[in-house]
This record gives sequence, C-alpha cells and structure tokens, in this order.
Amino acid sequence: MKIAIDGMGGDNAPSAVVDGVIKAINEYKEVIFYITGPEEKILLELSKYDYPKERVILIDAKEVISTNEHPVMALRKKKDSSIVKALNLVKDGTCDGIISAGSTGAFLAGCTLIVGRIKGVERPALAPIMPGRRGSFMIVDVGANVDCKPEYLVQFGKMGNIYYKNVFNVNEPSVGLLNIGVEEEKGNELTKATYKLLKEEKSIKFVGNIEPRDIPTGDTNILVSDGFSGNTALKMYEGSASNLLGMIKDEVIKADIKSKLGILLLKPFLKGVMKKFDYKEYGGAPFLGVNGICIKAHGSSDGRAFKNAIRQTKTFYDSGVLEEIKKEFLSEM
Amino acid sequence: MKIAIDGMGGDNAPSAVVDGVIKAINEYKEVIFYITGPEEKILLELSKYDYPKERVILIDAKEVISTNEHPVMALRKKKDSSIVKALNLVKDGTCDGIISAGSTGAFLAGCTLIVGRIKGVERPALAPIMPGRRGSFMIVDVGANVDCKPEYLVQFGKMGNIYYKNVFNVNEPSVGLLNIGVEEEKGNELTKATYKLLKEEKSIKFVGNIEPRDIPTGDTNILVSDGFSGNTALKMYEGSASNLLGMIKDEVIKADIKSKLGILLLKPFLKGVMKKFDYKEYGGAPFLGVNGICIKAHGSSDGRAFKNAIRQTKTFYDSGVLEEIKKEFLSEM
Repeated sequence: MKIAIDGMGGDNAPSAVVDGVIKAINEYKEVIFYITGPEEKILLELSKYDYPKERVILIDAKEVISTNEHPVMALRKKKDSSIVKALNLVKDGTCDGIISAGSTGAFLAGCTLIVGRIKGVERPALAPIMPGRRGSFMIVDVGANVDCKPEYLVQFGKMGNIYYKNVFNVNEPSVGLLNIGVEEEKGNELTKATYKLLKEEKSIKFVGNIEPRDIPTGDTNILVSDGFSGNTALKMYEGSASNLLGMIKDEVIKADIKSKLGILLLKPFLKGVMKKFDYKEYGGAPFLGVNGICIKAHGSSDGRAFKNAIRQTKTFYDSGVLEEIKKEFLSEM
Repeated sequence: MKIAIDGMGGDNAPSAVVDGVIKAINEYKEVIFYITGPEEKILLELSKYDYPKERVILIDAKEVISTNEHPVMALRKKKDSSIVKALNLVKDGTCDGIISAGSTGAFLAGCTLIVGRIKGVERPALAPIMPGRRGSFMIVDVGANVDCKPEYLVQFGKMGNIYYKNVFNVNEPSVGLLNIGVEEEKGNELTKATYKLLKEEKSIKFVGNIEPRDIPTGDTNILVSDGFSGNTALKMYEGSASNLLGMIKDEVIKADIKSKLGILLLKPFLKGVMKKFDYKEYGGAPFLGVNGICIKAHGSSDGRAFKNAIRQTKTFYDSGVLEEIKKEFLSEM
C-alpha cells in the first residue's frame, strides 16, 4: 500500500508527521510513504531517525495552506502546496490513500475537487470514530455538509454502515438518527423527513432516533446527522470531558490533605480512564464518499496520533470499504 | 408573590413537588403556593408535614397530562389537568408564576396558548441556566423552536440578555452565537444570516461565534441557538458528564487496592465537584417571551430541585425581568 502524507498539515508539522511515519514504518512493513512538503524541512526531520530509506519518498512542495485561508481559493492558488501535491498523488493513482492534519476546509474541498466523488454519492461526509462507554461510535457527518437534504442523510447512514461493518467486523451495526427526542414525530423538518426515509431503507439496521445524551454510551454504532448538529455534538463531547477534568483540577488546588493523597494514589488509574477518551488513540476521521481513502487527522495530532491515523488508513484499505461503497452506490443508479 | 405549582408534573410527583414546597415555605415567607392536582393525593402528601396551612392552597384537578401525549391535543382535551389548571391561575392573574416538571411539550404549548406571548415576541424560547467552569451560562433556545429564522435568534439574544443582566446582576453579559467555527463566514445558512443581524444589534454585547467545545467554560454568558442545535448541545453536555463518571465507575471495579483507597479518600471531594454540575442546584429553565413567569423544572426533579426552582421563580419575579422584556419589545413595535 502507498500512502500520501501531507507533511505540513497540523499544528506540530512537520516534526509530528515525520515522527508518526517513523513510528509506523516498522509495524506496517508493506506500506510506502510519500511525504509532501518543503524538501529541506522534511529532510531535516527525517535525518533525526534511522529508517529504511527506500520506503519513504519525498515529494517537494514549497507552499503551505493555513487554516485561516479560504479553502477553495487556496487550493486553486497554491498548486505547489503540500496538501494539493498529496491529493494529486491519490488522484493520479500513485497512492491509495492520503492523511492530512491540515486545514479541514481545504482538505475536504480538495478531496471532493481533486480526488473526486464516488459515482452516485451526493455529498461526501466526514465521519470520526469516537470512544464510547461500551464501544466506539461514529457520527456521519460532522461538518462537511452544514445544510442538508434528507436524502444526503440516508446516504451518510449507508456509507457509515459499510465502514463500520467492514472495519470493526460487526455483522449488522446499528444506525441511529441524531435527534432531540426518541419518538418518530420529534425533531425539525430535516430529521422528521429523514426518519421516514431511514425506516424504509433495507440495507441498514435503523434503530430510530437517538438523543445526544445517549450517544456517549456507544450503544448505537453509527449516528446520522447534518454536519452542523453532528459537529455541535462532537465538539460538546470533547469540550465537556476536558471541562470536567478542568473543574476537578480547579478543586484539587483547594482540596484538603486527604483528597490530595487520594488524587496521588489515583493518578495512574485516571490516566487509564482518560486514554479511553483520547482521540489520539483513534486515528483520524475518514471522509466517506470520495474516490480514495482520505483520512483527516486531528489538527493537534502528535506522532502517536499520526501513527494511529496510518494504522486506520491501512485498515480502511485492507477492509475493502472503498470498493463496497462504490458497489453499493453503483447498484443504486 | 403567588406561585402556581403543577402538583402532578415530573417523575416523582406529587411527593417531590410537595417536598419542594415545604422546603421553600420557611425560606420564602412572602410566597403563597397554589398546588394543582387530585385533592386526596396532594392532601395525603401534605399531611406528612407540619407547615403554615394558610400559605398552601389546593386547587383540585382530576386529570394528568403524560409526557407521551400529543401536547396541544392533550391541552385541549384535558381541561381538568393539573398543568392546565396551573396555567389558568397565571392567565387569570391569580398567580404571578408557574412551575411544572411535567411534559415539556405540553408545558411550552400551554404557556404560549394559555398564558400567551408578550407583544412583539415572535417565538418564546426555553433558556436553561447551566453550571460552567468559570460561571453559569444560558442557552436560548433548547427545544421550543426547532426550525428558526434569523430574526427569532436575535430576539432570543435580547431576552437572554435581559434575564442574565437582571437575575445575575451582570452589567453587560456577553452574548455569543452557537456555531461550528469562530469566523464570521462559518456555519449554516441560519447562523450566517443571524451573525449579520447580531453584529448590528446595539442592545447586547455580541461576542461572535462560540464553538460548542468552549461553551462549558462559562466564559460566554448567553448562547443563542435554534432549538435543535441548542438541545443537542445541552443533552450532549449532560450525557458526557454522566458518561465520564460512568466510565470511571466501570474502571473502579477493576482497579487495584491503591486506586480503590484513592477513590475512598476522594469521595467527599468528588461529591463537591459533582455538585457544581448538578442541575438540581440550578432550579429550572425559564420560558422567556411569554406573559408570565414560567419555569420548566427537570422531569426527574426531587424536592431539592423543586425548592431551587421556587427560589428561581422568586428571583425572576423580584428582578423585574418580565417587565423589562415587555418594555424592550414594546419599544420595538
């Protein structure tokens, strides 16, 4: 397998990116890495490590697209950027997949414009996998499509279903509709219309409306949503956990000796719990519906997060999800 | 002050309702309570306590509206229900405010249809106050209006501003727009159009877009949102905290002796942290924009939560928020 790596994407690029590649290189021996970015910068990072040189190919790219540039404009203007070069490697078939921790907007627009949509898919969707109490869950979409039609959401459900089934080896994953009430008639115009369509959809196991408070249990595998609500749920999930920990820290300062001792004893244990919550363990978010394996890594990814995104890209490839999605949507047309 | 209490609203009615009234009766000596519900049931609960009889007036109501009934249909059919009787007490001027922990749908519809909207308010909005890390915050709306126009959201901001300013004695509370990105051009059609209007609104201190992950800090006092996204954020906030604690509990069972000892030492401390997160401390959610003080208490309220909802109803009354909202919207017409 060949993976294109946006060498300049993310807050910690290029050092975290190169670190991630090096961490993965011995574990996934059949993978060849194409790193894009300013040659001298990437080489400087690589020179810190000892690694099989023939498996890391450097593609020079002089420009970088930052997160505060207009995505489509930047893609058009900066043909020599690390992200555009990496996307072109997938488009022309040199690479099987791409990972970027750079601008989400530029990445999603680039995947759609350069790599292209799968025939029959109306809107590709960003679908991160999150740690839940009793299992992982996936929200499709979390921001690629802020204004949606019911038909898009049905497609999100079908793509999520194929991904979850094949990547996690679950026979019939459950698909729920993110909604503000469990009854069929609850919700806004979009969810009410979507419910009716999902109920009739034979290819998925639709379990009805799921309220946001029940998402973190992980009992429902795939949550279908418009990108605005999905993003709201996702960011509130991240924000709440870190806020709760922050509140505990605030209190620790004021705590009595007994509580401080308790915290000291508990530290390794709490670290274990937190690991369950750590997005860095989970890799990135697949962008489903485009004609390639496109993984968006978290902007603040470190080497470990990058390594996990590489693992995820490989699993995506090995599981044949891309072909399954193509087959499903071709048969619909 | 006279408060109408829906004696049969909530999972623990009527016992929790009566318990809350008794808890509040000595603290708020100038309040008279009108409890609606089946006479014999309410009397049985009251008979368990010793209290000043002249300050509790029983209004017989034989029917109860449950949470799975169609709100408007149930309101029309069940004229003798505890909620309708309580709403009528506000409508006819007998009472100054109402508290109900019953069906949210029936309560909101009843407030609008029976108590009525304030002139100039297009859509009343449900606005719970939540505990944040550095202060309380308010989300307006969390479910009364699932499909919104930009103009509604501006009104939500103005009503929230008046409430927060007067109830929390904050001179210029900050008003943010719940959105999935901080830049002005981020979001869906609704938030983009709303941003433009809020920016021009002189009567509030608009601080721009606020991402859901930054809401729990409490740094922004009032978050404006359509009811669907607001409800999603609220329920995810509640769900994440209880899920995190659940995950910790799961791990505790497997923990080693050292960690278990740590937890034992920490218990009282953690209880203090959790109290900060406890909606029961915060009373209920005011329904802003209707012509009366209408407080929706949490469905699972216990006596303490009811007592706090009574405190909140009294503060709402004393602060003159209702008159301020009327004045503001009258001047607009």
